[in-house]
Amino acid sequence: MSAEPRLYIDADLAENAEIALEKDQAHYLKNVMRLGHGATLKLFNGRDGEWRAAIDHVSKSRVDIAVMDRLRPQVAEPDLWLLFAPIKGKRIDAIAEKAGELGASEIRPVLTERTVVARVNTERLQANAREAAEQCERLTLPAVHDPVKLTDIVAAWPSDRSLLYADERANAAPIAQALAGKAPGGRWAVLIGPEGGFSPEEQTLVRGLAQAVPVSLGPRLLRADTAAFAALSVWQAHLGDWRDGDG
Amino acid sequence: MSAEPRLYIDADLAENAEIALEKDQAHYLKNVMRLGHGATLKLFNGRDGEWRAAIDHVSKSRVDIAVMDRLRPQVAEPDLWLLFAPIKGKRIDAIAEKAGELGASEIRPVLTERTVVARVNTERLQANAREAAEQCERLTLPAVHDPVKLTDIVAAWPSDRSLLYADERANAAPIAQALAGKAPGGRWAVLIGPEGGFSPEEQTLVRGLAQAVPVSLGPRLLRADTAAFAALSVWQAHLGDWRDGDG
Repeated sequence: MSAEPRLYIDADLAENAEIALEKDQAHYLKNVMRLGHGATLKLFNGRDGEWRAAIDHVSKSRVDIAVMDRLRPQVAEPDLWLLFAPIKGKRIDAIAEKAGELGASEIRPVLTERTVVARVNTERLQANAREAAEQCERLTLPAVHDPVKLTDIVAAWPSDRSLLYADERANAAPIAQALAGKAPGGRWAVLIGPEGGFSPEEQTLVRGLAQAVPVSLGPRLLRADTAAFAALSVWQAHLGDWRDGDG
Repeated sequence: MSAEPRLYIDADLAENAEIALEKDQAHYLKNVMRLGHGATLKLFNGRDGEWRAAIDHVSKSRVDIAVMDRLRPQVAEPDLWLLFAPIKGKRIDAIAEKAGELGASEIRPVLTERTVVARVNTERLQANAREAAEQCERLTLPAVHDPVKLTDIVAAWPSDRSLLYADERANAAPIAQALAGKAPGGRWAVLIGPEGGFSPEEQTLVRGLAQAVPVSLGPRLLRADTAAFAALSVWQAHLGDWRDGDG
């Protein structure tokens, strides 16, 4: 398979638009994919749908592309934040990648009492989420935020956003049962605790939110990354855009 | 947190049983965890539930443990195979790990026309699945099988086992809708295709099975590992032991 490259760009997309690619993407097309004049690719910017474009001009320092025709219109995507306590190394990369594929709209690291990792490379998270979005044919990028304290984000929690809260150590309703009565769509967030669990104070704080929907992810104690993948998947299947079928 | 070690062993577990640990586990307790006489741990063998044990004797060449009391009885677990086309490197390790956490009973690599990776290190898959089972408090190990051809396994497909089949490139009912009418439990398998998708012949073959339940995992094209995590999670939430609640 030599699939057409698919790139996220910032520029507006419209018929006959001419775009000079940024350095990284020019390098990727020219030197990694070894594409030249006339080669086609797909583009999206999170606003104008997906477009086909062709390489118009390649020089040492730049690659220019010409936008051709629109392949898909922009459609509304689920409004689903992922809040998670940062974890180490490859596992946090995988969380960003899978959040991209599983359709999280925003990626928000939260610092909890038992969070081991305090520094988060948000640029790296964004790069992983972007690559996943490009590859999975998504029409937007998830927005990656800097880490904030869990207590701060809960204190200012939006009144119209439900919070699906998976605490592996607390009793709660099974996730399918907890979501069964809810209306599809709407504003949601998934909150995954640190490997050591939330502190009792944090549990009380989150459960005190009127918007909190505590759920159980079964009898096995899931790692934080696994819990994130599971909660996002079950949410998408029940309330998100996996319901629409014929995907 | 200095959590008690939790180990899978082959030996029978019963009150006052004395067990000489195998070399790897003896090394782990003695040299990695630096435990000595009297330190406690948890054991399971897939048959006798979970037991507490204590280190009885440590010498240069061995660690003996004494089984104390049973912490949990053995309970029936979902009968859910995971069939997937092998993929490269870290991603296949993650599939084995997550299959362990998400409660797959058997891990079965299948070779398809577009499978890129033909060699599978099943010992490594088993080690990843085992470590996940130990850590997630599961009472069994998933059985890891050697790779077989998809055509062979489909030709001999058990008449009493449903096959949840996620083909990212084919139209199918949304997964929640496809599973909604099914009875909980029962014998199931999840089949995930290779990154290049099933061939048309393979699609016809699988869809021809009376036991096949083709499903869609939404509008984004998921990687094979992501699709496996998603399908296992949604199955567990709908039909598996995530339904039981208060986990």
